Amino acid sequence: MGSVLGRILTVTTFGESHGPGLGVVVDGVPAGLELKQEEIQADLDRRRPGTSDYVSPRREPDQVEVLSGLAGGRTLGSPLALLIRNRDARSGDYADFSRLFRPGQADFTYFAKYGLDPQPGGGRGSGRETAGRVAAGAVARKLLAREGVRVLSYTLAVGGVRAETIDPGFAETDALRCPDPARAKEMAALVDRVREEGDSLGGVVEVVAQGVPAGWGEPVFDKLDAALAGALFSIGAVKGVEIGEGFALAGKRGSEANDQMSAQGFLTNRAGGILGGISTGEPIVARLAVKPTPSISLPQRTVDLEGKERPIEIHGRHDPCLCPRIGPVAEAMTCLVLAEAMLFHHSRYGRGK
Amino acid sequence: MGSVLGRILTVTTFGESHGPGLGVVVDGVPAGLELKQEEIQADLDRRRPGTSDYVSPRREPDQVEVLSGLAGGRTLGSPLALLIRNRDARSGDYADFSRLFRPGQADFTYFAKYGLDPQPGGGRGSGRETAGRVAAGAVARKLLAREGVRVLSYTLAVGGVRAETIDPGFAETDALRCPDPARAKEMAALVDRVREEGDSLGGVVEVVAQGVPAGWGEPVFDKLDAALAGALFSIGAVKGVEIGEGFALAGKRGSEANDQMSAQGFLTNRAGGILGGISTGEPIVARLAVKPTPSISLPQRTVDLEGKERPIEIHGRHDPCLCPRIGPVAEAMTCLVLAEAMLFHHSRYGRGK
Amino acid sequence: MGSVLGRILTVTTFGESHGPGLGVVVDGVPAGLELKQEEIQADLDRRRPGTSDYVSPRREPDQVEVLSGLAGGRTLGSPLALLIRNRDARSGDYADFSRLFRPGQADFTYFAKYGLDPQPGGGRGSGRETAGRVAAGAVARKLLAREGVRVLSYTLAVGGVRAETIDPGFAETDALRCPDPARAKEMAALVDRVREEGDSLGGVVEVVAQGVPAGWGEPVFDKLDAALAGALFSIGAVKGVEIGEGFALAGKRGSEANDQMSAQGFLTNRAGGILGGISTGEPIVARLAVKPTPSISLPQRTVDLEGKERPIEIHGRHDPCLCPRIGPVAEAMTCLVLAEAMLFHHSRYGRGK
Amino acid sequence: MGSVLGRILTVTTFGESHGPGLGVVVDGVPAGLELKQEEIQADLDRRRPGTSDYVSPRREPDQVEVLSGLAGGRTLGSPLALLIRNRDARSGDYADFSRLFRPGQADFTYFAKYGLDPQPGGGRGSGRETAGRVAAGAVARKLLAREGVRVLSYTLAVGGVRAETIDPGFAETDALRCPDPARAKEMAALVDRVREEGDSLGGVVEVVAQGVPAGWGEPVFDKLDAALAGALFSIGAVKGVEIGEGFALAGKRGSEANDQMSAQGFLTNRAGGILGGISTGEPIVARLAVKPTPSISLPQRTVDLEGKERPIEIHGRHDPCLCPRIGPVAEAMTCLVLAEAMLFHHSRYGRGK
Repeated sequence: MGSVLGRILTVTTFGESHGPGLGVVVDGVPAGLELKQEEIQADLDRRRPGTSDYVSPRREPDQVEVLSGLAGGRTLGSPLALLIRNRDARSGDYADFSRLFRPGQADFTYFAKYGLDPQPGGGRGSGRETAGRVAAGAVARKLLAREGVRVLSYTLAVGGVRAETIDPGFAETDALRCPDPARAKEMAALVDRVREEGDSLGGVVEVVAQGVPAGWGEPVFDKLDAALAGALFSIGAVKGVEIGEGFALAGKRGSEANDQMSAQGFLTNRAGGILGGISTGEPIVARLAVKPTPSISLPQRTVDLEGKERPIEIHGRHDPCLCPRIGPVAEAMTCLVLAEAMLFHHSRYGRGK
Repeated sequence: MGSVLGRILTVTTFGESHGPGLGVVVDGVPAGLELKQEEIQADLDRRRPGTSDYVSPRREPDQVEVLSGLAGGRTLGSPLALLIRNRDARSGDYADFSRLFRPGQADFTYFAKYGLDPQPGGGRGSGRETAGRVAAGAVARKLLAREGVRVLSYTLAVGGVRAETIDPGFAETDALRCPDPARAKEMAALVDRVREEGDSLGGVVEVVAQGVPAGWGEPVFDKLDAALAGALFSIGAVKGVEIGEGFALAGKRGSEANDQMSAQGFLTNRAGGILGGISTGEPIVARLAVKPTPSISLPQRTVDLEGKERPIEIHGRHDPCLCPRIGPVAEAMTCLVLAEAMLFHHSRYGRGK
Repeated sequence: MGSVLGRILTVTTFGESHGPGLGVVVDGVPAGLELKQEEIQADLDRRRPGTSDYVSPRREPDQVEVLSGLAGGRTLGSPLALLIRNRDARSGDYADFSRLFRPGQADFTYFAKYGLDPQPGGGRGSGRETAGRVAAGAVARKLLAREGVRVLSYTLAVGGVRAETIDPGFAETDALRCPDPARAKEMAALVDRVREEGDSLGGVVEVVAQGVPAGWGEPVFDKLDAALAGALFSIGAVKGVEIGEGFALAGKRGSEANDQMSAQGFLTNRAGGILGGISTGEPIVARLAVKPTPSISLPQRTVDLEGKERPIEIHGRHDPCLCPRIGPVAEAMTCLVLAEAMLFHHSRYGRGK
Repeated sequence: MGSVLGRILTVTTFGESHGPGLGVVVDGVPAGLELKQEEIQADLDRRRPGTSDYVSPRREPDQVEVLSGLAGGRTLGSPLALLIRNRDARSGDYADFSRLFRPGQADFTYFAKYGLDPQPGGGRGSGRETAGRVAAGAVARKLLAREGVRVLSYTLAVGGVRAETIDPGFAETDALRCPDPARAKEMAALVDRVREEGDSLGGVVEVVAQGVPAGWGEPVFDKLDAALAGALFSIGAVKGVEIGEGFALAGKRGSEANDQMSAQGFLTNRAGGILGGISTGEPIVARLAVKPTPSISLPQRTVDLEGKERPIEIHGRHDPCLCPRIGPVAEAMTCLVLAEAMLFHHSRYGRGK
């Protein structure tokens, strides 16, 4: 279990890294939404591997097929089922690891939970699982666009290199999704160097939602920031989430942290667009701490299924830094959370206000 | 909506700051669990106001009444309903603010969402709402204790003062819940000084779960870290959550971030006890960024319900730093998340391993 | 578990027959709904015992206290917590049965499930549990009234006596809630006679929802009739539910069963107001088969906790026929289901149409 | 929305009658369950059209493809995604009805809800949607078989012809799934005659679950009978559900309705295996009232999308009586409800007892 998200906009993903395919069913999309297969494909293309030097070279077209829920360019109000076939699953690449727990991967915990031997490519624990999320997110994105909401992301930092200016348009053109034209080369050089050393890098992804009106989100357990943090933390490799100024606020005083107001609105947005779990109307800003890709070719210590210590070196098709591929997934999760919050809000208070 | 947590261990809180009372209904507790009202009371006493110089002086005994679900010292398998009457609600304290949006509070967003004037004490948005959570958490704590799980917390940092040694037992005796005997006075002195200046401080709370066996948590959306992060983020004033080394991992390499294994088990616990969303058997470690208390007596700019700019100074009964009171709430949320994950796991794989 | 209903309008009941009290928390009610405590009380008064010769003489005022969610005559958008204290719980009445499984009651199954000895009055399995449902239903009723929806019920049949004309207003004045002035005496006489014989009677309750617009309900698993049937079946003693012509349609032909249409709308309402799981705009009509009260004073065979056969005669305060008290509960469940369906529909399609 | 069932064993169906395909994702199946694609196929073959004179001649092989969740003959603990392609969708058959509301179908209500023109074959409202349910039910059936539970069904009555002896094995060989060898021909003759007259017939399906241990099901809203009734009512054309003696109990006395006990157990099973919402250990018996197939070739009155009255005659590929195809769907729904109840029970009380 665990592959179902949402109560009113319900997203169910399926698929393993080396099985027949991956996909998602999205239930709860209103009828009549204009939606093209190409729009879903466009978001998938932003996440798929094999597109640059900085992502896994596994050749997956990630071509989406719409199995249901869409006719004549409009949604039917019934579940959208979206299927992506696996095309380049080379289980042989993982034969060496079928009885070893790869450090930093879910092999050990899946074994402890399910009693299963490590699956090729991590099975359900693979990052490929997020393809279904991105496809679902593309649908939510369309729903939000009708309300004027726009969600974007970029790689704020990789290792020690941090973007200082933010140009989201530039990030879309950069292989690492760095938003700072002045730092992009430095960031790429660092990744190149570390990869050559057989190692990998962590980083920070920032996701921003613009145009969310004040009033979305629900108090207590369904706070918008709680839902968003949970959703972003559900992305593999994410080890931290902060909203607005986040951890920096822990070192500040109230007079430095509050967003005061004038007749023109909020004077600052330190809260990152959410107060008391409800959107303020300011941009929603979240940052994700992404751990370094665990699959590295440097030698590491691990054990086999019998608990006997064994050295391991992982050569294969791995991203040197996960940030550029997590960005689109983070956008998808943000879109899904916002669309759910919007529907909850509309159910009682309508689209007005 | 938004006051219901969990699908199999379902927690529903209710109550406003200045209404007749607060409480919680916990459905899904197995029959036959030994539970005493005093055990619930003990956890409530750790959170309640009026207990030291560093928390709000509002005098609330926070005496819990068990309305259902318990007989003869054992749970009945039916919902536990727990009620705490408000005793010291002075609505008059808030009369000045009934038409102003207090900066950093939910007044503005509740108004935007519900069309309600600001409620005394923040109404449902008040920190008092967490009393119900703590009561529910005490029940979950008992359930976890049967499995050998123990959850604790402390104030890791306040403003710039950070604990360097961790003595959880000391934290229980310290008014700020500082775990470092050598730093406790410095921390207290900082809070004293800032409070005298009419300001407040943020900080960092750390929560630790010991004894969680490997295998709890579900992949994809119900990852244990995702559920935990969402639950911790649902606590008011929390603006960031990290698990294990968290944001620090963003600046590291894979070789520095992976937890390697020997025949004796994991060599490190940088992951904070969770891999692939499933517990590893190592201690689960989470940190919360807590923003400074928004209610401060320094002058601030804000607007009234008509949008006209108005200055505001908030004098009243406020905690100078929320960390010592958030600790017990963070424990409660952690207990609830772990108990739910345990029940999900047991439903399929039993209590054995 | 099992005491939580709904995903968007969430109702959690609590309480045992002989514990401190009963109640309910309703989360998801929109802010600003006009609601008076007396309106909730009025619905409770229609269900409570001690009001006539035909219901249990247990003296329970069933006085409701609003603990949260309401201020100044309007809902706050936060959970409504409603508490009803038990006043006349005489556990001694059940002392004889504390080690016997009463036939037709949940004693045996609760013992099998929970390992609990039979609780006084059935504990959580008591019909008193429905007080919380009725209180919640009163809130949903108000929400529906804003949309022009009205829900009513009556006792269609008791034993072999069946109402032939339906006057819902008369039913409100009749102790058995019989809607047929010409049959009310006959129905009462039958109940008198059977009760004197130490026996009890089953019957049929009909519930009708008027004014539901076309379009509420969701396909497949959340069909309006599926939700309604499940909710009505959750009332103790209900052993069958049918909508529209129900079981009679099993013996008919398509040409006799379809509701044909003219320019003025449906020519008949054999479907009972629901087609394909979605409301048609015609009145929604459901009937509940109610089994005879299981507690009878005639001698019966049963076993004790050790499985040894023992005779049993149950003297005490029992309703001779449950129909008059199930009517208000059936209305409450219908209101809750309709309000949930309405909110789901509004979340996507607004209140228009 | 509405296509998601269950909270711990989560079933999401998708697909329209004339779209690319149908299917289901089942999340929550434990890892390690032995499962073959042919077992799923076997259940699908019992439901699919084109297999006899008494079901629609639409030629659909209903061949299932397992997209995920299964490897090496065992489940992986991850979602099982099952896909069935539509092969014989002739949209042209429905061209005449694209602007008319077919009586007794969901065309009108889907139009009212979604603003959609009637879809070919009813779109999502088609009986073909149940293919996904049957596939999911086959998985739940395997899960239950491990616990010794067996679920079967038969056509108890068609029009006025009712089976008097029950031979479930015979039913499996009969085109109408009649369980009474002595009545099967009469039943078939009635269907033949009515079909020739351009009309259709309703009937009653009975479903039985054997081997369910005492203790499954949860009180109040998640009662086993409530969940079962809701699930069975979610099958199109079902207008009534009763458990045990059902509506007949409404006409009886307590002394005739209670199941008394001896040292050997229950003396009768009038309750149909459920007391207080929890299984008794006796067979669970439910009956479904199935309305006549609404698509008939006799002339009927209806209106078009503009509300103008228009006559309609529906010639095409329709089942003369839906009972034989609803039986396997009712089994599937029963299996899903029981498996969910089992997992809920196991989560707290284990498999023992």
